[in-house]
Amino acid sequence: MGSTTGRLFTVSTFGESHGGGLGAIVQGCPPGMPLDLAAIQRDMDRRRPGQSKLSTQRKEGDQVEILSGVFEGRTLGSPIGLIIRNKDADPRAYAPFKQLYRPSHADYTTDARYGIRAWAGGGRASARETAARVAAGAIAKQVLAHLGCGEVIAYVSQVGELVADIDPLSVTLEQVESNPVRCPDPVMAVAMEERIRKVRSQGDSIGGVVRCVATGVPAGLGDPVFDKLEAELARAMLSLPAAKGFESGTGYAAAAMLGSQHNDAFEPDGAGGVRTRSNHSGGIQGGISNGMPITLSVAFKPVATIFQPQDTVDQDGKAAVIKPRGRHDPCPVPRAVPMVEAGVALVLVDHLLRLRGQTGRLGPA
Amino acid sequence: MGSTTGRLFTVSTFGESHGGGLGAIVQGCPPGMPLDLAAIQRDMDRRRPGQSKLSTQRKEGDQVEILSGVFEGRTLGSPIGLIIRNKDADPRAYAPFKQLYRPSHADYTTDARYGIRAWAGGGRASARETAARVAAGAIAKQVLAHLGCGEVIAYVSQVGELVADIDPLSVTLEQVESNPVRCPDPVMAVAMEERIRKVRSQGDSIGGVVRCVATGVPAGLGDPVFDKLEAELARAMLSLPAAKGFESGTGYAAAAMLGSQHNDAFEPDGAGGVRTRSNHSGGIQGGISNGMPITLSVAFKPVATIFQPQDTVDQDGKAAVIKPRGRHDPCPVPRAVPMVEAGVALVLVDHLLRLRGQTGRLGPA
Amino acid sequence: MGSTTGRLFTVSTFGESHGGGLGAIVQGCPPGMPLDLAAIQRDMDRRRPGQSKLSTQRKEGDQVEILSGVFEGRTLGSPIGLIIRNKDADPRAYAPFKQLYRPSHADYTTDARYGIRAWAGGGRASARETAARVAAGAIAKQVLAHLGCGEVIAYVSQVGELVADIDPLSVTLEQVESNPVRCPDPVMAVAMEERIRKVRSQGDSIGGVVRCVATGVPAGLGDPVFDKLEAELARAMLSLPAAKGFESGTGYAAAAMLGSQHNDAFEPDGAGGVRTRSNHSGGIQGGISNGMPITLSVAFKPVATIFQPQDTVDQDGKAAVIKPRGRHDPCPVPRAVPMVEAGVALVLVDHLLRLRGQTGRLGPA
Amino acid sequence: MGSTTGRLFTVSTFGESHGGGLGAIVQGCPPGMPLDLAAIQRDMDRRRPGQSKLSTQRKEGDQVEILSGVFEGRTLGSPIGLIIRNKDADPRAYAPFKQLYRPSHADYTTDARYGIRAWAGGGRASARETAARVAAGAIAKQVLAHLGCGEVIAYVSQVGELVADIDPLSVTLEQVESNPVRCPDPVMAVAMEERIRKVRSQGDSIGGVVRCVATGVPAGLGDPVFDKLEAELARAMLSLPAAKGFESGTGYAAAAMLGSQHNDAFEPDGAGGVRTRSNHSGGIQGGISNGMPITLSVAFKPVATIFQPQDTVDQDGKAAVIKPRGRHDPCPVPRAVPMVEAGVALVLVDHLLRLRGQTGRLGPA
Repeated sequence: MGSTTGRLFTVSTFGESHGGGLGAIVQGCPPGMPLDLAAIQRDMDRRRPGQSKLSTQRKEGDQVEILSGVFEGRTLGSPIGLIIRNKDADPRAYAPFKQLYRPSHADYTTDARYGIRAWAGGGRASARETAARVAAGAIAKQVLAHLGCGEVIAYVSQVGELVADIDPLSVTLEQVESNPVRCPDPVMAVAMEERIRKVRSQGDSIGGVVRCVATGVPAGLGDPVFDKLEAELARAMLSLPAAKGFESGTGYAAAAMLGSQHNDAFEPDGAGGVRTRSNHSGGIQGGISNGMPITLSVAFKPVATIFQPQDTVDQDGKAAVIKPRGRHDPCPVPRAVPMVEAGVALVLVDHLLRLRGQTGRLGPA
Repeated sequence: MGSTTGRLFTVSTFGESHGGGLGAIVQGCPPGMPLDLAAIQRDMDRRRPGQSKLSTQRKEGDQVEILSGVFEGRTLGSPIGLIIRNKDADPRAYAPFKQLYRPSHADYTTDARYGIRAWAGGGRASARETAARVAAGAIAKQVLAHLGCGEVIAYVSQVGELVADIDPLSVTLEQVESNPVRCPDPVMAVAMEERIRKVRSQGDSIGGVVRCVATGVPAGLGDPVFDKLEAELARAMLSLPAAKGFESGTGYAAAAMLGSQHNDAFEPDGAGGVRTRSNHSGGIQGGISNGMPITLSVAFKPVATIFQPQDTVDQDGKAAVIKPRGRHDPCPVPRAVPMVEAGVALVLVDHLLRLRGQTGRLGPA
Repeated sequence: MGSTTGRLFTVSTFGESHGGGLGAIVQGCPPGMPLDLAAIQRDMDRRRPGQSKLSTQRKEGDQVEILSGVFEGRTLGSPIGLIIRNKDADPRAYAPFKQLYRPSHADYTTDARYGIRAWAGGGRASARETAARVAAGAIAKQVLAHLGCGEVIAYVSQVGELVADIDPLSVTLEQVESNPVRCPDPVMAVAMEERIRKVRSQGDSIGGVVRCVATGVPAGLGDPVFDKLEAELARAMLSLPAAKGFESGTGYAAAAMLGSQHNDAFEPDGAGGVRTRSNHSGGIQGGISNGMPITLSVAFKPVATIFQPQDTVDQDGKAAVIKPRGRHDPCPVPRAVPMVEAGVALVLVDHLLRLRGQTGRLGPA
Repeated sequence: MGSTTGRLFTVSTFGESHGGGLGAIVQGCPPGMPLDLAAIQRDMDRRRPGQSKLSTQRKEGDQVEILSGVFEGRTLGSPIGLIIRNKDADPRAYAPFKQLYRPSHADYTTDARYGIRAWAGGGRASARETAARVAAGAIAKQVLAHLGCGEVIAYVSQVGELVADIDPLSVTLEQVESNPVRCPDPVMAVAMEERIRKVRSQGDSIGGVVRCVATGVPAGLGDPVFDKLEAELARAMLSLPAAKGFESGTGYAAAAMLGSQHNDAFEPDGAGGVRTRSNHSGGIQGGISNGMPITLSVAFKPVATIFQPQDTVDQDGKAAVIKPRGRHDPCPVPRAVPMVEAGVALVLVDHLLRLRGQTGRLGPA
């Protein structure tokens, strides 16, 4: 039951890392919307392994096949069923670790939860799972554009101790995609790339931070109290593999601020509307969007797979030493960028439809 | 629909800040469990306004009345309906602000969402809403104890720039409750209290951080992928008023770490089980609990109500100046402590029942 | 978790027959809608016990108190919390049956489900529970009217072997309320009333059928496949106490018909729209409303409480004889009429909002 | 959102009649359970078209491909993703009806709901959709067997005016499968077969009734109030194509009975347990199973496709005459038998897991 998210615009996913494939069912899509399959594939290509020297060398084309919900190029409003085959699954590489728990992986906890484990790769806990939600998120992005309700862009702002200071509103997709790290600051991107290469060469891994901004989102999204927009976004972000932290707007920095510093004064926007002078709130107040850019960040821990001997236990609880193998990214954040965008887009679309359902606002596309 | 949370153990709440009252329906409680009403009231007293000089002077006894679901002192397994009357609602204080949007409050966004607003107080967005979930959380804590599945304790670790360095595993409820700030470091607590008093005297407010630890939680809680335990906890925490950030385990610090530093080596625990040598994961790996203490933190922004003139707009979008009134806490974190505990307990119980439902593990109470 | 229904317009209820009271939380109500409290109370009065000689003599005013979600006479869009106190609970009458399972009641199954039972009355299984949903349904009826999307009326069409042949489209509320049986055929109503009186005098009970028609409902309601409109209506109807059967349109009679008899030919309605010449489909085709009147029926078994000795077992499984006491209706259908209307209205409103959310059709109120 | 059902054991489906294929995601399956793929295929073969002269001649092997959730022959507890390709889709046959609404089909209502329609076949409303849920239901049946919690068998009890009088407890799968009508009374089966052949030869169609019995189901399944077991079963049954009625236990006959006739006396079962002397309740009392056989029936209207000219309108609302083509069953009930079984099994498993989750009863497999 944990593989479904959303209330009106819902996504359910399936798939293990080294099984037959992955897939998703996207329900609640507005009907009659032209669906751009190439755009979906572009996001898949941003997420897929093997796209650069900074990512795992597993070879997966990640071709999305849509089996339903689309007719003559338009959405029917019925469930969109899509699948992505696993082409380069290689269970044999994992055979040595069948009995050993890889530290900070989900091996041990999966056994604790289910009493059985697909030992070939990370199974359901693998980042490979995100292929399905990136596909779903790419559909959500098209819904946002179709309804004229916003655009979502994410980028790498930190790798290890290297922090880029970037105005989120200035970032373009071209900048993000101009380097394999996906950091829009070209100088910092080079430094980050070197950092990742060095870590990889040492058989180690490193963490990082992804920032995301959604612009053009109308005011009024978010359902108090448990489904506040920030709560839903936090859930979506912390459901990404290796995510360990989330900030909305000023985030943790807000803890050290005074109200007189943090409050966002309202002012007329000169076009008949309202804006805030600052945006410490990150576009969300009282759990509801206020029409300003929605800004958030996600912290990722270093990838658990490192190619160094580590202490662990086997399935019988006996002490052992493991030296993991497999194909893994040395740093999670470059490929996390499209995952973050997907997660944010899914939440926004769900809340757009919820707003429309309860109030009738926004109207037909 | 946003006021319900959980899948098997569910809570729905209602209530505006200055309406007739608040309440909750708790569904899915294990039947036959003795319910300690005094323990519920103790948590209510930790949350209620007027408990110290550091909190709003609104006077609310916050007496919980249980209308159903309990018979002869034991839970029936049927919905527990509970209400809390508003006794000291004072809508008149808000009359001047009927037409003005208070900066960084939910006034503007509530209008954007619903087109109507209970201008007397914060309405549904008020922290008063949390009374209902603290009551529900107090029931959840009893379920945890009843099933022998853990204890949850939270405390203030930061007020403004004042950061307390505390080993979460050493913290006791007595320490937390020994001072009005709810910081278990008594020296730091004094400094924090002075800081808050000074801020209040200036008509200002200040942010802070609450940390929480859950011990004794069995391994195996959490449902990949969208309902990972961290994702569910993040959602619960970001649904608290003024929350802007969430960390699980090492949180943002993980971004600057190497895998060789961050990975938690497994080792036999000497009692036939397994533990990790470090706990950077914060008790959760792959979104599932691993039996180690679950550690998390929540960042809160300063309370939006400050008693200083601020630029804003009125309901017609015209520029105006507002000087808010009303009764508010100068710092959100002391009273947020029981709210954080409640939110964590609700998530844990829901996942305990989900684990039991799918696998049959844990058995009857 | 079983006490919540709906996806966008949701209702959660609580309350045992002889506890402190009952209540409901109604979420998702369109905001800004004038709420007519007297109209809610009118439906409560139609459902409450003691309204005529045909119903139980338990005295309950069933006054609804609304605690939230309404401000200055209009809905806020936030959860509407409402409670109904139990005034005439009389647990002592049930003391003799504490150890005995009343045949065809929920006593035995409640113990099987929960291992504990509120032996004072039917607990959660009592028809008293429906007070909360009739209140919620009365709100739903107002949403239907507010959106101009339909009217729901139910009536008794059968008591025991007495079957009234009535054109559902001719029935008015006045006719239904003109007699205590709630059968709009006045001659048949007299016969039914006599039948019920006789059954009561024999210490027995009798079943019946309620028919319902919803007119003015727009085409397009219902979500294939599991949430087909008929499926949702069937669920709502079978969740009523003593309900054992459901028909949509022609129902069971359809099984004996040919397609050439059953098919509803389309024709222009003379006003630019479309109608069907016949309405065997009962206003629903492929699980979606077609704009024609929605017709359905619900079969109710005789009330389980009869005042005659019956074989049963005690809580230890030993054979025993029971002669129930308590205050009960001899026939369930007269008071079931407002319950059926409430259940239908709740489903229709939920699907109206779902349609609006996905497509943007219908627009603001 | 309408294509997902269940709370702990959930099924989501996708697929149009003449699109690329169908599929389902089954979540919440108990882990470690051996999964018999051949048994799944056997139920698929009972449902698939072209299996006898009584069904449509569309040729579909309906091979189920499982992509995830199973590892080395056992369930992982993760989502089971499965797909079924459409092999014999023939959109061209429907081209003449692109602009015309087929009477009593979902063409008109689909346009009303979505504003767009996959005119090639019935789209999402087609009975072809049930392939996915029969596959899911076959998994559910294995869970029932794995937990030792029951067996589900359905059969045809009526075709047109021909009604078979059969003791549901005497019916075996072999009897049901011994003839193409799936009526376990061999004499009546011959008459029914002749009836269907004659109707088909006239270009007409005919309705029928399917009965179902679930034996060995433990007492305690069902969650009052909206999720009463009968309510959930009714929803599952009315979500089947062409279903128009549902009965639990005595169903509509109960309306004409006295309480003294209908009540099921309890008695010791001679093995330390309890049974009821009669089973008018159909194994469900107060919405919760009582351990007796669960009996229900579903009424199906005649298939809407008949090969006779009928009055209708086109997409512009103008009067027209249509003579449908396509490949359709003349009677829905023979192929509905496995659909009914699937729907019942899905509900039972969901409630088994819910019971186990809340109470801890039943224990591991």
